[in-house]
Amino acid sequence: MTLLQSFIQVHPDSHFPIQNLPYGIFKPQPDSPPRPGVAIGDFVLDLSEISSAGLFNGTLLTNSDCFLQPNLNKFVSLGRPAWKEARATLQKLLSSTEATLRDNEVLRQKALVPLSQVELLLPVAVGDYTDFFSSLHHTKNCGIIFRGPQTPILENWYHLPVAYHGRASSIVVSGTDIIRPRGQAHPAGNPSPYFGPTLKLDFELEMATIVGPGNELGKPVDINNAEDHIFGLVLLNDWSARDIQAWEYVPLGPFLGKNFATTISPWIVTLDALEPFACEAPKQDPPPLPYLTEKVSKNYDLSLEVQIKPLGHEESSVVTRSNLKHLYWTLTQQLAHHTINGCNLRPGDVLGTGTISGPEPESRGCLLELTWNGQNSLSLNGLDRKFLEDGDEVTLTGYSKGDGYTIGFGTCSGKIVPPAP
Amino acid sequence: MTLLQSFIQVHPDSHFPIQNLPYGIFKPQPDSPPRPGVAIGDFVLDLSEISSAGLFNGTLLTNSDCFLQPNLNKFVSLGRPAWKEARATLQKLLSSTEATLRDNEVLRQKALVPLSQVELLLPVAVGDYTDFFSSLHHTKNCGIIFRGPQTPILENWYHLPVAYHGRASSIVVSGTDIIRPRGQAHPAGNPSPYFGPTLKLDFELEMATIVGPGNELGKPVDINNAEDHIFGLVLLNDWSARDIQAWEYVPLGPFLGKNFATTISPWIVTLDALEPFACEAPKQDPPPLPYLTEKVSKNYDLSLEVQIKPLGHEESSVVTRSNLKHLYWTLTQQLAHHTINGCNLRPGDVLGTGTISGPEPESRGCLLELTWNGQNSLSLNGLDRKFLEDGDEVTLTGYSKGDGYTIGFGTCSGKIVPPAP
Repeated sequence: MTLLQSFIQVHPDSHFPIQNLPYGIFKPQPDSPPRPGVAIGDFVLDLSEISSAGLFNGTLLTNSDCFLQPNLNKFVSLGRPAWKEARATLQKLLSSTEATLRDNEVLRQKALVPLSQVELLLPVAVGDYTDFFSSLHHTKNCGIIFRGPQTPILENWYHLPVAYHGRASSIVVSGTDIIRPRGQAHPAGNPSPYFGPTLKLDFELEMATIVGPGNELGKPVDINNAEDHIFGLVLLNDWSARDIQAWEYVPLGPFLGKNFATTISPWIVTLDALEPFACEAPKQDPPPLPYLTEKVSKNYDLSLEVQIKPLGHEESSVVTRSNLKHLYWTLTQQLAHHTINGCNLRPGDVLGTGTISGPEPESRGCLLELTWNGQNSLSLNGLDRKFLEDGDEVTLTGYSKGDGYTIGFGTCSGKIVPPAP
Repeated sequence: MTLLQSFIQVHPDSHFPIQNLPYGIFKPQPDSPPRPGVAIGDFVLDLSEISSAGLFNGTLLTNSDCFLQPNLNKFVSLGRPAWKEARATLQKLLSSTEATLRDNEVLRQKALVPLSQVELLLPVAVGDYTDFFSSLHHTKNCGIIFRGPQTPILENWYHLPVAYHGRASSIVVSGTDIIRPRGQAHPAGNPSPYFGPTLKLDFELEMATIVGPGNELGKPVDINNAEDHIFGLVLLNDWSARDIQAWEYVPLGPFLGKNFATTISPWIVTLDALEPFACEAPKQDPPPLPYLTEKVSKNYDLSLEVQIKPLGHEESSVVTRSNLKHLYWTLTQQLAHHTINGCNLRPGDVLGTGTISGPEPESRGCLLELTWNGQNSLSLNGLDRKFLEDGDEVTLTGYSKGDGYTIGFGTCSGKIVPPAP
């Protein structure tokens, strides 16, 4: 089979070939209203223009206004048949052998906008944000650091995908500056807690499910239908203030140590685009209860990387390399578990995977693990780092290499700035 | 000073005299669009009709469409000067000495709808829901039950208002049935966890702040301005499945044990209406850090009560009597703490107080405490209860008694129904 090609030239290393077509929300000009687009090479295809031109002419989307919205919530709520129809329409329209868009210069001028000139916004309005804790290696490392080596992994962890609720209001899109939070901390040996800017600012390398169709309150999603509720994935950086977190988190979990900001990538890569990179999930022992037992247990082989660029430096340093396939609990197990008590999900909800650490020390997904809570330093081109400093720019990337193409998420980045005095 | 009276007859025990005027959202007919109203005696005053009639004629609200919305978010975002103007307009319009509405039969017919015939909806679209843990007695009792008598209250509790994020999607309005959740539990002595309907379903007697104007990400609210961000209060029942909670909650806090449903009262009582019942908050020792130290430290003397009516019974039994004044951390401390790290609040956000238990055994705010985790039983007119049974209807009420009038919240109720087979 020959590789599907677009009439738009796409470099083999580009994250956005015609095989990907990730969805986002953008403004072509600073004063334009936000609208949906897909990334293709160095361009964004404006779906509001394609829709207005009547080119979404399949049975499900022909009369839909889902691409005339300021976010993707309506489109993601429509479900997989509509997503597949949109993907087929767009792959045909962008293919090198199809004249409709290729040879219509007026439409091309309107509908294809250089990526370099657009403003990318949050792709969805997030109703609720949940964060899981599904990497065995991350869980084990954190357990040793916070509670000691006796029982690094608590018993419940092997029986259910542990999770907590995060803050939806402070989810920001890649490129948003991250203001160093202030708060209370109480280091061991201090007689009493003190207040000030966090001294242990960290990133967390995560990905997240963007929920498609939701479920009604009281009606759980069956594990074997859970995939139909997943529109796609984003990169997610769950910024964390470890000193604030350590003092506040007992007994009800993280709060101000996390909710000052969470960054996601602007592009949602669909499960359909990731399907060629599906792989078997790790064997689970003990076997999960029936409601978490799935016919097909799937992860994705997706390379993840974090770079830090200190203020005034030209070069970034790679500080970790991990892979989505290291998750112990699958995305579908997370979603089914979330609803098993009747909890309702809504289109656009964000389900973070938790920090994705691999088995090797150099695949750990946060500075807490990489520097062992500041006991060691990382070297960034000669600069020492235990935790993030003002001016540091942290960039997450994620991609899978196909035969002659790359499916990627672009970047998910944020720069640390000091709080206002 | 003579008591302000309405031309609408209001019984002295009614929760909704002209001194109260709580805000809600209602439908006068099943197929009408939702609109804002205030409760007055046995009626709802339709604010969309008052607005359309041009009677909000003060400087701030004269051209506003805030009462033509399907929720109160726009109105609560306007801030205290607009709230005071609306209150003054409505108290004048409803007073016995003002002819405008009293003598206009056509407008009265349109704008005053019997409470008994309307459908009440959620008053706000909730962006994020946070739950605090601010009653000393509740914290102490839970600590003893879950961890033993050595350190029932952890050290951080006295230094900051501990809180966690709840689920916004499953907040429902009073009157919504509560489906008994299923989930994993692992009682002591069992070799492994099992899956099934919760055997320890509980209520939690709480109140909640409805946030008015929000704050920008990175810009904390000063403790002495925090009251300006509080529109008013509701009753809140944070339904809890204690067996699910006990197994899942380490180390990241409650999740499926809580997020299957949270009920709030349909009426938001404003801080202006509650001001006559303000009282001094408990002395805090150790003194809080400066960012939590307020010039005026205020609670409200507001009686709270929980009743349970078993299936087929005519009579409810009162199972606890508590008071909002028992809160250790004030509502303004909760709000200021929530934002101190830069976390942004949005209009309509819900900040639960946590279970409000008083010092006496009969003022404990949940069955976990009242039956000491099922070790004892309560008697409901001769029926034993350790936790909630299917068919039980739980009703929270809250009110303050003034001189010749009552300021109340109506009821916040829900009936337990079994999960679908």
